[in-house]
Amino acid sequence: MGEPLGFRCVGCGRTYRPWGHDYLCPDCGPVAGALDVVYDYPAFARGGIEFPRVGKSSLWRYDPLLPVGEEFAVPLRSGGTPLYALPHLAQELGLGGLWLKDDTLHPTGSCKDRGTAVTVAAARRLGRPALACASTGNAASSLAGFAAAAGVPCYIFVPKGAPSAKVAQLVAYGATVFRVDGTYDEAYTLALAACEKFGWYNRSDGQNPMVVEGNKTAAFEVAEELGWEVPDFALVSVGDGSVVAGIAKGFRELRMVGLTDGVPAVYGVQAEGAAAVAEAHARLRRGEPVLPARGEARTIADSIRVGEPRDALRAVREVAATGGGFTAVGDREIVGAVQELARRAGVFAEPSGAAPLAGLRRLLAEGTIPRGARVVLFITGSGLKDPQGGLAGLQEPPVIPPDLRAVEEALG
Amino acid sequence: MGEPLGFRCVGCGRTYRPWGHDYLCPDCGPVAGALDVVYDYPAFARGGIEFPRVGKSSLWRYDPLLPVGEEFAVPLRSGGTPLYALPHLAQELGLGGLWLKDDTLHPTGSCKDRGTAVTVAAARRLGRPALACASTGNAASSLAGFAAAAGVPCYIFVPKGAPSAKVAQLVAYGATVFRVDGTYDEAYTLALAACEKFGWYNRSDGQNPMVVEGNKTAAFEVAEELGWEVPDFALVSVGDGSVVAGIAKGFRELRMVGLTDGVPAVYGVQAEGAAAVAEAHARLRRGEPVLPARGEARTIADSIRVGEPRDALRAVREVAATGGGFTAVGDREIVGAVQELARRAGVFAEPSGAAPLAGLRRLLAEGTIPRGARVVLFITGSGLKDPQGGLAGLQEPPVIPPDLRAVEEALG
Repeated sequence: MGEPLGFRCVGCGRTYRPWGHDYLCPDCGPVAGALDVVYDYPAFARGGIEFPRVGKSSLWRYDPLLPVGEEFAVPLRSGGTPLYALPHLAQELGLGGLWLKDDTLHPTGSCKDRGTAVTVAAARRLGRPALACASTGNAASSLAGFAAAAGVPCYIFVPKGAPSAKVAQLVAYGATVFRVDGTYDEAYTLALAACEKFGWYNRSDGQNPMVVEGNKTAAFEVAEELGWEVPDFALVSVGDGSVVAGIAKGFRELRMVGLTDGVPAVYGVQAEGAAAVAEAHARLRRGEPVLPARGEARTIADSIRVGEPRDALRAVREVAATGGGFTAVGDREIVGAVQELARRAGVFAEPSGAAPLAGLRRLLAEGTIPRGARVVLFITGSGLKDPQGGLAGLQEPPVIPPDLRAVEEALG
Repeated sequence: MGEPLGFRCVGCGRTYRPWGHDYLCPDCGPVAGALDVVYDYPAFARGGIEFPRVGKSSLWRYDPLLPVGEEFAVPLRSGGTPLYALPHLAQELGLGGLWLKDDTLHPTGSCKDRGTAVTVAAARRLGRPALACASTGNAASSLAGFAAAAGVPCYIFVPKGAPSAKVAQLVAYGATVFRVDGTYDEAYTLALAACEKFGWYNRSDGQNPMVVEGNKTAAFEVAEELGWEVPDFALVSVGDGSVVAGIAKGFRELRMVGLTDGVPAVYGVQAEGAAAVAEAHARLRRGEPVLPARGEARTIADSIRVGEPRDALRAVREVAATGGGFTAVGDREIVGAVQELARRAGVFAEPSGAAPLAGLRRLLAEGTIPRGARVVLFITGSGLKDPQGGLAGLQEPPVIPPDLRAVEEALG
């Protein structure tokens, strides 16, 4: 793999020696002090960079730009997900091209398995005895699944009110689950304290630079699949901000090492009721302090229902560096996008996973995305995570007698 | 692709010209008259057969042994799923090797997407205006998803009592769903009549030879991943019988074209309360008539809860030809297998998907599978299809106050 040059603080820019700090810049603290893994990009640009041409249908093919080697990876496949072209929908929308990056096809059903794969490999490299995170959603089930495959203990902190089905899945994977009698923020803080006390390796978004290193590989795969011709726009939903930051970073790195000529404008799509990162980006553009980033957290899309985004600074900086931005869409648009994706592409996404299609319609309507543009939507989570979430307004089919005439009548 | 030599009746052996009959042998009728696609195997064995070495991480790489070419395929990826080695569990069980073929990683969450991919491509090649099937489970959601991606209308027949969540997913994909006021058998018969009347292409298991052509590619992938050294045993769960028949056929074809030296003994795993195919196989071994195959249908594993298996004759013939057989396991063993797979491998399967692990323990205990054997388990469906189904007996985690001492106490 590519041994990192250092871990750079996204807030103050100070660079620490690799692996000297697992998590945060001690001067800047949480969110502002998130660390970014930096490689020797000019050396790659001079000497060339190559990925294996055969086999390795996983994110480990991008070994030169990963901080950990595949020898530390668990067998579960992460990355290597398909990119689908949607020429008919592209034509209807007046686009020059439209693709879906289907990251629902991951072992635990979401793109979080990318960040988890690299994080768990790093934990093994560092000899950490256990893994942990605070989350009620996709990151938790992802970590629990990969920890099981690694044979490493896993500790998950969820607020007491977490849905019992999601808790059950964590228990099935054998994770030790702490249902915390308090808010999600209290669970998050408790997880931090426990990781410090017991030496557990923390996968929580915004806490661990390894997460973004995995997330960025989704951009690598899209660019490679398109023959290193990057699209004009890339859209992805945003909760804590680590996924959109990773995708923007991935495209940025490819340009720095000379594999691509440009980067797409990366747009983060939030829910109108949970848009703290979009608001932080608006402050950045007005020249106001980005942090603290806090807001309400009300949306049907539970995976991006985040009031206190833990990677907000990194997300707005990375997105701004691509010339992109943020948009927010309503729950009705998100539900419509779930149904449109399922009906038009055969891809059944959870509400947050379908949100980029709603964001695309919004950005087209306001003229931010021009006619003829080439657009990639990152679909981040499976509809099987929440089968009812995106189905509001659909009618239950009628009951008919077991008779062919009844079929004819129903068909009209 | 490899143009088939003919479609051969599994009952009477008569061979029809390719595509002359879509479905059944007219003399033998349902189940007994299922048609099997036959290729010119000796020609492949003489001339050699090659699959592309790069790209095509889908079942379409096996083009020479498929009846339809990729030019008719829809974009959704089918096949190309991972094979995971489990050396620790192999050692514990005294096996020479143990692998999981993780077919949960399909667009609609089950191995049914293999049969559907080939069936939908065939429908496009034949110019059929619409697709249909009777099912309440994985085959229905698979067909609805692929039909959506094809932009082709899809008609699904389910009994009135089908779970509303599964019906909702079908509706999300835009399928026309008929909830039939009757049993599953009545829905099945009505679907047949409607397909005949309206010219819809029928994907129902046991009705269409294309389904098995897709299913067999799971065996191709396993053999190729193992360097064309086939395992000693291959285990897969059995409902209607089309999946196990496809896997046995796939291994058999590889030997006939000269890519492998032998075939694994393929074992079908049924639930004790729904074991009509296993009973049919027992009759075959006693020299009694195999059909009709009927029995009770009671098990927690809804995807193999089949009382009247529609591809029973093909299944027992194909399995017998590999020197394999059938076993049946109890619901308690199936639930234990779901939990063991999740905890040991990080693979979350639905109950039917985990049943092969329960079958493995049974076959080891009775000595059918000897120590040192190399075994592959086919994991056919995602646990997200039925998250609660495999979790019986697991304890709900305790609630703790947001306090580090409480974590320490809980850890003991």
